[in-house]
Amino acid sequence: MSVERTLHHFPLDPASRQVRLALGEKRLAFADNVVRYWEQPKDFLALNPTGVPPVLVEVQGGQTLVICEVRAILEHLDETVTQPPLLGREPAERAEARRLMQWFDRKFNDEVNAFLLHEKLEKRLLKMGAPDLYSMRQGRDALRAHLSYMEKLLQARDWLAGKRLSYADFAAGANISVLDYFGDIPWRDFPAVKTWYMTMKSRPAFRPILADRWPGLAPAGHYDDLDF
Amino acid sequence: MSVERTLHHFPLDPASRQVRLALGEKRLAFADNVVRYWEQPKDFLALNPTGVPPVLVEVQGGQTLVICEVRAILEHLDETVTQPPLLGREPAERAEARRLMQWFDRKFNDEVNAFLLHEKLEKRLLKMGAPDLYSMRQGRDALRAHLSYMEKLLQARDWLAGKRLSYADFAAGANISVLDYFGDIPWRDFPAVKTWYMTMKSRPAFRPILADRWPGLAPAGHYDDLDF
Repeated sequence: MSVERTLHHFPLDPASRQVRLALGEKRLAFADNVVRYWEQPKDFLALNPTGVPPVLVEVQGGQTLVICEVRAILEHLDETVTQPPLLGREPAERAEARRLMQWFDRKFNDEVNAFLLHEKLEKRLLKMGAPDLYSMRQGRDALRAHLSYMEKLLQARDWLAGKRLSYADFAAGANISVLDYFGDIPWRDFPAVKTWYMTMKSRPAFRPILADRWPGLAPAGHYDDLDF
Repeated sequence: MSVERTLHHFPLDPASRQVRLALGEKRLAFADNVVRYWEQPKDFLALNPTGVPPVLVEVQGGQTLVICEVRAILEHLDETVTQPPLLGREPAERAEARRLMQWFDRKFNDEVNAFLLHEKLEKRLLKMGAPDLYSMRQGRDALRAHLSYMEKLLQARDWLAGKRLSYADFAAGANISVLDYFGDIPWRDFPAVKTWYMTMKSRPAFRPILADRWPGLAPAGHYDDLDF
């Protein structure tokens, strides 16, 4: 019995992008609904009381399953659509993929996005006024530390968590791609990260993400360039 | 081949407590190492570069597996030690358990712990001076909103995520129990939460948690009382 999927997401939200990449990589078609979550729409709050995207709704044989929050959706997709496996096959691979997912969902989010994305994106959406230069600086400094960590990993590994593409690459790719939309990645200083990101960008699952545009916010010139 | 486990944790850390409850409920013996993570010990940073507990180390047949971060550990334990299942059996149960795990790991943590636990515990450990009354008030107000949400769920359900005990109960129990150590749960106003917590407290897996004491920080008088 086929499953009909609808993803409630926001194009420039790193958590939403992780799920779009997972759905794309597993070749699952889905309807999409863009959520203006900062306006706290009632129909969306009824789906997820935290008010945060992404939410995946699956309908199969008259049964509806609502899956809220990025980690729950990613784990669910790997459990129910097993090919290709995106969490890794062995316990050690899975532990490493999940460690890095957490790294981006919490540490990167708290140290980079909470400053840089907050100033450049959220304040704009929420009409909170001009970005604060000191906060942006703080976010950019933290970003360089994270990129250095990725550079070290990617000098020794084919993919972020090891030998195979995994959700860890999507967690990193989703976050990096949103910041790259705003032109904030200093590519020149991180050659291994750049090579990895070129490979990510060229995957078919990445195409819809490179096509994202938000009214009033133009992306950096190289954003959708595969050869940047 | 038997697995030898060591848990690196901090007794009053809600994330660490979730793993102790999971290990206890699955009847897995483990050695424990208390981490003074705020001092950023080098040997612990070598295990987990985020510097955050918990970390579970499993040794089996000469192979060592290091699993960092609470979600990775909980998912791993349910995959490798299947009885009793603690994530739920059906996709809908698992989605609900994981939604609530995320609720506590992010929303509860950001809205309650970042204020209340920061003021009462972290500032003490880090010798950052007296608690700020305004921040504590903000944390307590948020806590009441979270307890109201739990009350609503538990009026309709046997356990937090549905018909069966799950990791969602551990996520809630771990967070609530740390705040209860500091006497911060207004039990009288949340009878369904209180009944649920009495049941949680009486489980054997909860006993070590009720025995936790940290030098210089005495728990509230009723903390380990099953009949509070």
